[in-house]
Amino acid sequence: MDAAPAFTAVLFGLRGCLVHTANGAPSPAPGALATLASLRQRQVPCIWLDELDSGQGQRLAQVLPDWLPGHTVNGTRWPAPNACWQALMTLHSARLDGCVLVSGEPRLLQSGLNAGLWTVGLAACSPFCDLNSRQWQAMTAQQQDLARGKATLELFSLGVHSVIDHLEALDTCLQDIAQRRHKGEKP
Amino acid sequence: MDAAPAFTAVLFGLRGCLVHTANGAPSPAPGALATLASLRQRQVPCIWLDELDSGQGQRLAQVLPDWLPGHTVNGTRWPAPNACWQALMTLHSARLDGCVLVSGEPRLLQSGLNAGLWTVGLAACSPFCDLNSRQWQAMTAQQQDLARGKATLELFSLGVHSVIDHLEALDTCLQDIAQRRHKGEKP
Repeated sequence: MDAAPAFTAVLFGLRGCLVHTANGAPSPAPGALATLASLRQRQVPCIWLDELDSGQGQRLAQVLPDWLPGHTVNGTRWPAPNACWQALMTLHSARLDGCVLVSGEPRLLQSGLNAGLWTVGLAACSPFCDLNSRQWQAMTAQQQDLARGKATLELFSLGVHSVIDHLEALDTCLQDIAQRRHKGEKP
Repeated sequence: MDAAPAFTAVLFGLRGCLVHTANGAPSPAPGALATLASLRQRQVPCIWLDELDSGQGQRLAQVLPDWLPGHTVNGTRWPAPNACWQALMTLHSARLDGCVLVSGEPRLLQSGLNAGLWTVGLAACSPFCDLNSRQWQAMTAQQQDLARGKATLELFSLGVHSVIDHLEALDTCLQDIAQRRHKGEKP
């Protein structure tokens, strides 16, 4: 049973969040399609955003569901709040209350904080964990855990409200934020 | 001594807040010019907004200082949050935190609440107190006080954070909000 209020909208980074681009070819990040399907089933409006030109953005978003709108940043760049507010206007969001941004990109997370959103950092998708680098692949599992822990601290130090390793943990994280909202916490 | 953090931006309604239009001719509302001068001296960016076409807006704003920018609502109307976010983008506001909307218009105040702003209602400029009406002018001072009291309750019932009678009380009201922010309250 979930008595907490529904979310108004969820904004996702495109690169380093919904879409991976290992070897140049885009693919949905692990958990991305299931997360989007779950939010759509609960009628929570979603959108991706990225600092790419519109054509590049559309190309990467081809691996995502057709129904998912996107916003490419033109003009004022992250960490200004503009891109987040514009994405919310694209979704015709009626209020800021209950809007969440999910990303591993520190500058986009800062934009979300500046815009007044709840923010969820993705440690394993942050620049502190470059999963495609030789350095990362040469690490032991324990070294990778340590690196993810360090990335988590870096994202929390920005002021983000929650940090998870990857999108597969988002559902539980959103439940936690719903409870914090229910108790009166504001972003 | 004021140790509270400075405000990021103050948004004002144009009609029924900064400008009065008794007898058709615009004039600055009592306290409007002093309020604007005081905020400018403290380097707090200000802007007016209204649901008028751009020409009408500019005509009314002629009685206000030249340095004051304005935003006329095109597209999505109040109480959607869009106009408030667009006004903040016009000011190049770096963050939502510390942004305040001042107005007597319930639909604009609701737009500010939806946008995540601190909101200050002006009871004597609200539609509940039509100062130019014959009915108002026929009231005794006591009846007018009662009407302002009722207007105050109506504005609080929207969820606005403070209600004052008129702009002359804004400075004290902003000090109060600064203290509430200092204690960790969020809008």
